[in-house]
Amino acid sequence: MCQPIRVSAESTTPPVCVLGLGLIGGSLLRAAVAAGRTAWGYNRSAGPVEEARADGYDADSDLTAVLRRAAEADAVLVVAVPVPALDAVLGQIAVHAPGCTLTDVVSVKGAVRDAVAGHGLGSRFVGGHPMAGTSQSGWSAGDGELFRDAVWVVTAEDGTDPASWTRVADLALDCGAVVVPADPDEHDSAVARISHLPHLLAEALAVTAASGGDLALALAAGSFRDGTRVAGTAPDLVRAMCEANAEALTVALDEALELLTAARAALAADADTEALVVAGHAARRRYESLPRTEITGVLVGEPGWERLLRDAGRRGEVLRARTY
Amino acid sequence: MCQPIRVSAESTTPPVCVLGLGLIGGSLLRAAVAAGRTAWGYNRSAGPVEEARADGYDADSDLTAVLRRAAEADAVLVVAVPVPALDAVLGQIAVHAPGCTLTDVVSVKGAVRDAVAGHGLGSRFVGGHPMAGTSQSGWSAGDGELFRDAVWVVTAEDGTDPASWTRVADLALDCGAVVVPADPDEHDSAVARISHLPHLLAEALAVTAASGGDLALALAAGSFRDGTRVAGTAPDLVRAMCEANAEALTVALDEALELLTAARAALAADADTEALVVAGHAARRRYESLPRTEITGVLVGEPGWERLLRDAGRRGEVLRARTY
Repeated sequence: MCQPIRVSAESTTPPVCVLGLGLIGGSLLRAAVAAGRTAWGYNRSAGPVEEARADGYDADSDLTAVLRRAAEADAVLVVAVPVPALDAVLGQIAVHAPGCTLTDVVSVKGAVRDAVAGHGLGSRFVGGHPMAGTSQSGWSAGDGELFRDAVWVVTAEDGTDPASWTRVADLALDCGAVVVPADPDEHDSAVARISHLPHLLAEALAVTAASGGDLALALAAGSFRDGTRVAGTAPDLVRAMCEANAEALTVALDEALELLTAARAALAADADTEALVVAGHAARRRYESLPRTEITGVLVGEPGWERLLRDAGRRGEVLRARTY
Repeated sequence: MCQPIRVSAESTTPPVCVLGLGLIGGSLLRAAVAAGRTAWGYNRSAGPVEEARADGYDADSDLTAVLRRAAEADAVLVVAVPVPALDAVLGQIAVHAPGCTLTDVVSVKGAVRDAVAGHGLGSRFVGGHPMAGTSQSGWSAGDGELFRDAVWVVTAEDGTDPASWTRVADLALDCGAVVVPADPDEHDSAVARISHLPHLLAEALAVTAASGGDLALALAAGSFRDGTRVAGTAPDLVRAMCEANAEALTVALDEALELLTAARAALAADADTEALVVAGHAARRRYESLPRTEITGVLVGEPGWERLLRDAGRRGEVLRARTY
């Protein structure tokens, strides 16, 4: 008996408090307001606060006041600050709004889970990662439609508070995303393979081509252009992303190196590329034909619901809409 | 005193005889006719001949007749057959049309040069490689606009016949391409880096991502999609291209492996990716800002003209238009 995912509680549309008004936080504040939520934001530096206010949004640079308001309104707190600021913000949340549902939008999930637990905030925390972005940054680059049809990972660990999970998933859905539930460490392994490894391979391809001189670059066409597109991203952004996930990325890079080393041996000995080319084509086809089935039949809060959601996410299944 | 490249002889618009009516040959026949050339084609199997005739083109499956006609008309012969058929076609050319200017559109240039020399056809041969294509094949996939603004490599070796060089370059320009002169072996090294290596890296990325399971594939977004696009190409086409250039591709792959192995060490030891990311970004920027300056001041046939053209191509310079 397959049924849509649902909760027994009523629909959850609590207010939203966004901490950090850069590209992702600023886009989230816009999207939450567009979805009819009461939402306000905080940013440490005054510039983005003024920009957000000028655009008609509720924003402040007083973290204590913003967090007290969140605690009074029982808002969902979204941590969208740069990783170096994470610890300080979590410390303030522990003082002023420890009872709020708490989520984040950081691109690694294991390290954030550990930091949150270190501040005693684990009981109402649900990790999040919207797989969206641009090469731009800052409030002005934000867009309330940034998350439309994007994948938004929402972590589901044993012991996660069901009400908080529903609140966070609903926020992602309200922003126009589809939700993929995942274990934090499995998330980190997955993004190492599909987001961070592509950057390292693109950088290596660009360097190898350029070492062929301007003749090589003059001959470069579609395969080079696509294969190196993300090497055009600012090095600081690429480094921050890859280095925060160094452990999982090392594993993925080792697998790629093993494949390429074996291919090198067959190429040099027998002018043969069959094994790698056939496997790569099959893998790309599998990606293209992934069904992205809708998750059904899981009642958030029932015994084992966290595992059921993780299993569904592991099959590439997604939650597309609030169904209650 | 910089002057446009020019020849002292009159404009060269000889007829064109295209041997092989697949994607590239079929597109070339269409483009030559569209440029006002008298042009006809040969194909061994009857299907493409009938398709070309149905589309209003002059085509035949009698190789001897086609070559005799080319010899009588002093046509430019373009070899556009698959690599396995190259030797047989060259053998027939040596018998029936040894005096014609001869070029080809094969993606490796050193091996074709050697095969042509083996048949005693080197004196009027000029290698060619239009950097254009699609994932489709066959006459029906052809397009007279396929070469518009594409790069078309025309080889310039010491001793190349100047009149033949001009005829081949003019044909490329008439098809809408820009011409980059190059040494055959330098061409093969360059395309290993910018065309064949991208395929191997895309295949390895696809396999590594898929080994993360459907969760990883479900999270894949732009960087993975672009980085693996060419892994969607039919394995036979990728293999034919890469394996024909195995020697140069091995060198390029070794350079990429060296870069990635060093990056792996820094990542595992210090969570550091700076060296690779900074170098990759600089290389991509160099590609984006390549000026593609027009070649000027070379008179084809003057002493050292072959070297002057190779030097220009090595600087990424291009020939854009017939200038006489």
